[in-house]
Amino acid sequence: MPLVADLRRIAGSSWLNVLLAAAPVSWWLAWQGSPPTWVSPVAGLSLVPAAGLIGAATESLSEHAGPTLGGFLNASFGNAAELIIAIAALRAGHTGVVKASITGSIIGNLLLVFGLSCFVGGLKHGTQKFNKTSAGTSTVMLFLATVALVMPAVLDLVSFGSLQAHPDQVDRLSFWTSIVLLLVYAAGLVFSFSNQKNPLRRTAPEHGQEPSAPDSTDKQGHHVGGSVGAAIAVLAAATILTVVEAEILMGTLEPALKVLGMTELFAGVIVVAFVGNAAEHYSAVSAAGSNQMTLALEISVGSSAQIALMVAPVLVLLSFAFGHPMSLVFNAFEITAIGLSVLAVAMVSFDGESNWLEGLQLLGVYLILAFAFYLIPA
Amino acid sequence: MPLVADLRRIAGSSWLNVLLAAAPVSWWLAWQGSPPTWVSPVAGLSLVPAAGLIGAATESLSEHAGPTLGGFLNASFGNAAELIIAIAALRAGHTGVVKASITGSIIGNLLLVFGLSCFVGGLKHGTQKFNKTSAGTSTVMLFLATVALVMPAVLDLVSFGSLQAHPDQVDRLSFWTSIVLLLVYAAGLVFSFSNQKNPLRRTAPEHGQEPSAPDSTDKQGHHVGGSVGAAIAVLAAATILTVVEAEILMGTLEPALKVLGMTELFAGVIVVAFVGNAAEHYSAVSAAGSNQMTLALEISVGSSAQIALMVAPVLVLLSFAFGHPMSLVFNAFEITAIGLSVLAVAMVSFDGESNWLEGLQLLGVYLILAFAFYLIPA
Amino acid sequence: MPLVADLRRIAGSSWLNVLLAAAPVSWWLAWQGSPPTWVSPVAGLSLVPAAGLIGAATESLSEHAGPTLGGFLNASFGNAAELIIAIAALRAGHTGVVKASITGSIIGNLLLVFGLSCFVGGLKHGTQKFNKTSAGTSTVMLFLATVALVMPAVLDLVSFGSLQAHPDQVDRLSFWTSIVLLLVYAAGLVFSFSNQKNPLRRTAPEHGQEPSAPDSTDKQGHHVGGSVGAAIAVLAAATILTVVEAEILMGTLEPALKVLGMTELFAGVIVVAFVGNAAEHYSAVSAAGSNQMTLALEISVGSSAQIALMVAPVLVLLSFAFGHPMSLVFNAFEITAIGLSVLAVAMVSFDGESNWLEGLQLLGVYLILAFAFYLIPA
Repeated sequence: MPLVADLRRIAGSSWLNVLLAAAPVSWWLAWQGSPPTWVSPVAGLSLVPAAGLIGAATESLSEHAGPTLGGFLNASFGNAAELIIAIAALRAGHTGVVKASITGSIIGNLLLVFGLSCFVGGLKHGTQKFNKTSAGTSTVMLFLATVALVMPAVLDLVSFGSLQAHPDQVDRLSFWTSIVLLLVYAAGLVFSFSNQKNPLRRTAPEHGQEPSAPDSTDKQGHHVGGSVGAAIAVLAAATILTVVEAEILMGTLEPALKVLGMTELFAGVIVVAFVGNAAEHYSAVSAAGSNQMTLALEISVGSSAQIALMVAPVLVLLSFAFGHPMSLVFNAFEITAIGLSVLAVAMVSFDGESNWLEGLQLLGVYLILAFAFYLIPA
Repeated sequence: MPLVADLRRIAGSSWLNVLLAAAPVSWWLAWQGSPPTWVSPVAGLSLVPAAGLIGAATESLSEHAGPTLGGFLNASFGNAAELIIAIAALRAGHTGVVKASITGSIIGNLLLVFGLSCFVGGLKHGTQKFNKTSAGTSTVMLFLATVALVMPAVLDLVSFGSLQAHPDQVDRLSFWTSIVLLLVYAAGLVFSFSNQKNPLRRTAPEHGQEPSAPDSTDKQGHHVGGSVGAAIAVLAAATILTVVEAEILMGTLEPALKVLGMTELFAGVIVVAFVGNAAEHYSAVSAAGSNQMTLALEISVGSSAQIALMVAPVLVLLSFAFGHPMSLVFNAFEITAIGLSVLAVAMVSFDGESNWLEGLQLLGVYLILAFAFYLIPA
Repeated sequence: MPLVADLRRIAGSSWLNVLLAAAPVSWWLAWQGSPPTWVSPVAGLSLVPAAGLIGAATESLSEHAGPTLGGFLNASFGNAAELIIAIAALRAGHTGVVKASITGSIIGNLLLVFGLSCFVGGLKHGTQKFNKTSAGTSTVMLFLATVALVMPAVLDLVSFGSLQAHPDQVDRLSFWTSIVLLLVYAAGLVFSFSNQKNPLRRTAPEHGQEPSAPDSTDKQGHHVGGSVGAAIAVLAAATILTVVEAEILMGTLEPALKVLGMTELFAGVIVVAFVGNAAEHYSAVSAAGSNQMTLALEISVGSSAQIALMVAPVLVLLSFAFGHPMSLVFNAFEITAIGLSVLAVAMVSFDGESNWLEGLQLLGVYLILAFAFYLIPA
């Protein structure tokens, strides 16, 4: 049957898929009532290929759907795994982890993924060029998100004395700010579709433009090209798997962190963000390695913008629907880290060129931020 | 008589001038002892055409005066209305409103006026180009002003524990900082006159350069070209009108705000700033619509720089002359809003190009800031 | 003897060397037990030519050593005088002065030296161009250093309530952050040597590229070209002189400041920084005057980056070796001043062009910062 062949092909397309074996192990451990320090990491591990498969299936569907609908699918479901994990965390009451992992996804994509892309690509190809308009639009989008994070915090801090006060005004500001972010994000999609130079989505049109692109492998590192039926089947299965594993992870997170002596903040900013973006990591660095820096930029910086302007606002709005509002008031470290990361990427990318030193500088910024997050007491 | 004909032509040149009818209404209301909630808005409304006429008359005089003296007239009296209103507020003891309206003029011109210009112009003409040097110089000027606002606040906050302490040191720092700003602003005028590429003034030389300019209408949207006598008469009349209406507005502002449930901060940042810059708004967007982005940039960003480097320092120095010094210590929201606006415009304009998405992004920043100012408790 | 002739030539090469006469005067004053208000300034004065001679001798040695080793020598010993003075201050327990003079060197080089270079060069030559990549790399380096200063302060402030708390975590963060800075700095050297476009070191290769360079005078304003023996002799003598005078200066600094009514902060940021960078000042402005803006940029901005990414981290690591750790927690004024200076230079230099107005704007930022530091109470 071609469907089975397609599925087998998709499953065998990326070495990351061997980590799918972690899923049944996590079920067995959870069923056995094993200690959380065992269950959590295994569930986390199984989320890596699950997130990757959602990305690959979305990619495959987009190719069948044509550029406009396809671009929309990509832009909307590109961070579906992050969204599912965050919803599970939100439902389990881990608001701190949700904010921390939003922060981690943003700075991780900007500094670690884009930095490593510049570094690896620069070592191989010297100075690399990329689309300036793409870089500029994403950077301004991220700056808009930074404003959206700074103002509620200033309101909270100055008018109510601390970042722990959660007055009604801050919730209202968070709500309306989220609406503004979503509208501008939607406008960004319209802009990119009408210009065929998409600053935000993570799609395939670059493949044709840059001849060295490996045309049978998508940028998630997965083989695509199967039928629509196979793509939908994979998407459904991977989504269900993500939901299940996210529930297991969030149910065991708190005791696991306590045993490991890790704060929620560090777990969210560094660990969760690392796990959730492993696929982007792999594909952006691959793209940079084959001298497709525009693609690497769109995957990394574009993904960051998507988290900031779509995933975060959707989570805020959902939290209102869930009845326990999550405001856009992030803590001082998170706001500082996001603001500094956006400025760093703006400085590096404004000239449309990158080299390995700029990559290393971004990695240096990431390291300093990671050290700081590690040392912050609970 | 040609003078009467000239005056009639000027009065009939802009649809905004129908708002001049609000002036006698405001006198009648004030004379009747009507409630402040009626007097204030009507007086505010009449300030819109008054400010516009000062601009138009200045423009007309500058054209007669030749490029150098004309440019100087423009640069000095371009924001005369704002200055008159602020002096009335200062004399009435509304220091908070003065600072708030300075803030509002700066961020309104940067985000709302320039943002709408990019948006409207971009929808009509696609990617638009403008003079990079102009953009760069104005942006650095605004950054200098940001430094001038940040340092007194940090001094106040760190050395004296709060932004409410007003020690002698902060007054002295405000005084000398204002002198520095005025000197750099004056140097900017010299630079632009000697280069014939004026980054700050709001004049006509662009008309000739960009062929699509409507050459009988100045960028304030008023018809000019009358005699020097007519221009001086209009300037005098509009100035007197502005002084009278500003006095009426400031005399009734406090009770009016109390009834409307609006803070001084919101009134200054959003309402006063909106009223005082209506003319710039109209003419910048018109310029962008006829694909003259350099002109639109000079009107909006240039006006912002003029407020920050000339109007604000002059008000500080005048306040010392009045005997109750106004320091350059703005509140945390104002400083944050100005800093973020300057960075946003710097990011959008550094490449000398704009499009409708960038305009929308700036409008998004403005909306978030406006929401925040609305929600700040008194 | 050629060695004596060489020495005489070096001594007579710069008018700054007449200040060497201050050295014996300072010894005599110190031996006489003169009041500190006399000893301190004279010792400070003698440090100006001593620092200049170390630079000239290093330069001379580098020319003999060939581009790679020479570049390394320059990059490592270019700020040797600053390092020696800081070590003397560290040993005398003046941690505040050390941090203040690091701050002063960074902002002084960025705003005063580079600003004056743009101003003087621009008045003489109009718009001047310089290497964009050089400017970009140095700016990102400085931004990295800013991140390195911001994070420990935020950690200290948010988690431990004040910038005066010095918990173990902040020391550890300072230590590891210093390592990261040194590694990125080292990578910057490798990058520049392999590209022959050095963004950081202050060397001679530009001499050949830009024809108007005065080829017998190095950029420190000293005549070079003597034998290796003469260069080593001068290096040794100037180093010993610097060590001695730094010890005299630091031993009399505290009582001298008390009498002069100057804070440690102002003395460090403005006075010490002015003295320690007099030679850079002179040579950068000379380079700009002969239309070599890339060289002027490398001397000023490059020196700033060297202070931030090499001198400061080395001092932190040395302070751990000395047993009384100096953290990277600078005070709020210093962090604000450095952050604003880096942003100002980024905005001015990103387009690879400068003019006299941009120079004046940078000088304006410096003046405002200097006023603020002067007014900060002890």
